[in-house]
Amino acid sequence: MSLSMYQASVPVFVRALNNLTHVLKKGEEYAKAKGVTPEVLLQTRLIPDMLPLLKQVQVVTDMAKNGTARLAGVTPMVFEDNETTLDELYARIERALDYIKGFEASQIDGSEARSVTIKIRGNETQFDGQTYLLYFILPNLFFHCTTTYNILREAGAELGKADFMGKP
Amino acid sequence: MSLSMYQASVPVFVRALNNLTHVLKKGEEYAKAKGVTPEVLLQTRLIPDMLPLLKQVQVVTDMAKNGTARLAGVTPMVFEDNETTLDELYARIERALDYIKGFEASQIDGSEARSVTIKIRGNETQFDGQTYLLYFILPNLFFHCTTTYNILREAGAELGKADFMGKP
Repeated sequence: MSLSMYQASVPVFVRALNNLTHVLKKGEEYAKAKGVTPEVLLQTRLIPDMLPLLKQVQVVTDMAKNGTARLAGVTPMVFEDNETTLDELYARIERALDYIKGFEASQIDGSEARSVTIKIRGNETQFDGQTYLLYFILPNLFFHCTTTYNILREAGAELGKADFMGKP
Repeated sequence: MSLSMYQASVPVFVRALNNLTHVLKKGEEYAKAKGVTPEVLLQTRLIPDMLPLLKQVQVVTDMAKNGTARLAGVTPMVFEDNETTLDELYARIERALDYIKGFEASQIDGSEARSVTIKIRGNETQFDGQTYLLYFILPNLFFHCTTTYNILREAGAELGKADFMGKP
């Protein structure tokens, strides 16, 4: 069996989203134990001009759902970015999981050369599917998963690298 | 052309290592401008019980060189982890780049089912090549690239997301 575009995308995103929920739950435990309100937790940042925890999680789910849809050549489902609680964020992650699991491998396999055009900071940027997955979606997805972890880790949550990685 | 194990590994690592050098150079500029010594910069951490900048960079290069070698079925070259300056870190990244660029695609393509056994926190863990690349090496590599970025970003370096991503 040789590596395929599907195998390098959807199952990798599923694993990252499940790990993200796990990391957030540990953040929630920490916040409860310390009397930190969910509002404060969701607005916690590494530095004021970086995105807060809430937005980091929103972007991870966007990378997973948009990446999957665009590789399949369909218009991504729109999420409204209106979450204000941790439970709503968990539900967003679940919605993204349900959505990406709904794609068949056959929709994504063979998308190496499929044209993907997106706006990056206002500029239309065109990729082939393989470049989009390997050089845009995966680095972005892991960047925002890691930053979510780093925000919670720095805040004091009981997290270790194994929480980020998940079970093999 | 279909996605291959080589395409999903070596060129992705090359891009990440080049971006890492770029991010570190911006960190170096910041340190120079603020009179922060390289020794202090290399020991900067997000929180005292996380790894310092120096170690984050060492781990990124380890993931790239070990990942490449093990997928090719050869014993990875050993780096001594004895860097104490930024210039030595840049040289380590270059050494890793030279090493991984020395592998032929034919050594890594077809490694999906190749057995890879490594120690993770003291426990022997066995992967097939595809699982090792997608669920161990890539998340780890991007975790430590992102944490390097976050350490420097939080410290005050003039960094933006585009510095992390590099040019498409």
